[in-house]
Amino acid sequence: MVQERPGRVDRRLSAILAADVAGYSRLMGLDEVGTARVLREHRSVTDALVTKHGGRIVKTAGDGLLLEFPSVVDAVECAVAVQAVMAERNQGLPQDRRMLFRIGINLGDILIEGDDILGKGVNVAARLEGIAEPGGICISSSAYDQVRGKVAVEFADLGAYRYGNGCAPLGRAFRQATRRSLRHAG
Amino acid sequence: MVQERPGRVDRRLSAILAADVAGYSRLMGLDEVGTARVLREHRSVTDALVTKHGGRIVKTAGDGLLLEFPSVVDAVECAVAVQAVMAERNQGLPQDRRMLFRIGINLGDILIEGDDILGKGVNVAARLEGIAEPGGICISSSAYDQVRGKVAVEFADLGAYRYGNGCAPLGRAFRQATRRSLRHAG
Repeated sequence: MVQERPGRVDRRLSAILAADVAGYSRLMGLDEVGTARVLREHRSVTDALVTKHGGRIVKTAGDGLLLEFPSVVDAVECAVAVQAVMAERNQGLPQDRRMLFRIGINLGDILIEGDDILGKGVNVAARLEGIAEPGGICISSSAYDQVRGKVAVEFADLGAYRYGNGCAPLGRAFRQATRRSLRHAG
Repeated sequence: MVQERPGRVDRRLSAILAADVAGYSRLMGLDEVGTARVLREHRSVTDALVTKHGGRIVKTAGDGLLLEFPSVVDAVECAVAVQAVMAERNQGLPQDRRMLFRIGINLGDILIEGDDILGKGVNVAARLEGIAEPGGICISSSAYDQVRGKVAVEFADLGAYRYGNGCAPLGRAFRQATRRSLRHAG
């Protein structure tokens, strides 16, 4: 659908998923080489889930991950699958060695610069990631509007959040509450 | 971005634009051959604007038109350009011969079936078209969230509408109010 049009700002509607590892600095402090290796092993599994759900890895930075999906439903289903597989992979590990992702999902009419994506829609996804609990998913109200009744999880309303230093409203945020039917993510 | 994945429902986030000609049956009643010819002439101009703004004609049915855009900003800018060029083309014509489009724009995580698009996001766009005034544009609140401050028109809040026979809420609808800077659409 996206056509290159010289001289125009290229935009597209996308679902943006931002993720990081909760307490990554602490884990790195405990065991730098081991933590980096374990993250790499997790990522080989979760990257396959991203591809399966039609997503694209825009960029990575340490434990940070920015993904783009053509569909919010697919992005949320991918996030649910990732959190399910990570819960399995952390089983049996001592609490302080568990690696838990925090995931934020937004939708936005974002700016396209080559392979990179820019704009408020991206920033808000990162803000939602920061609100998410370790192992949890937090989505914007505009994302919620598109997935309500279409995905196998329920979301709980977290109320209004503000974006940045109390400047602009982020809108309502929703966190994953219950899973309606357990899906295997493998 | 869209990948064919066998066995999965394909979805993508798109801006959906539904348009029709206000009073088309009445115009056809006055002059069937002439009305069809004039619409064809208008369409040759407006179709070029659709292409210019990165849109795709999904289907036409008489005076009805369903378009898909990768970006809501581009969809709204296209609609503004179409209404501007139609205003020019109608100048000098007697009131009862003017051909005015009504345009509705929504965004949705829609279902993809080959070249066709389906889902509530499409139905709501058609509902918004019905709310639009002749020569006007009506957009959903989720579309408005993505274009606010990014397009050269202001929108006025029309308040809450219901979708279909009072069953499900459509959300708020917004109509084009003022143009912030006149752009030529040619």
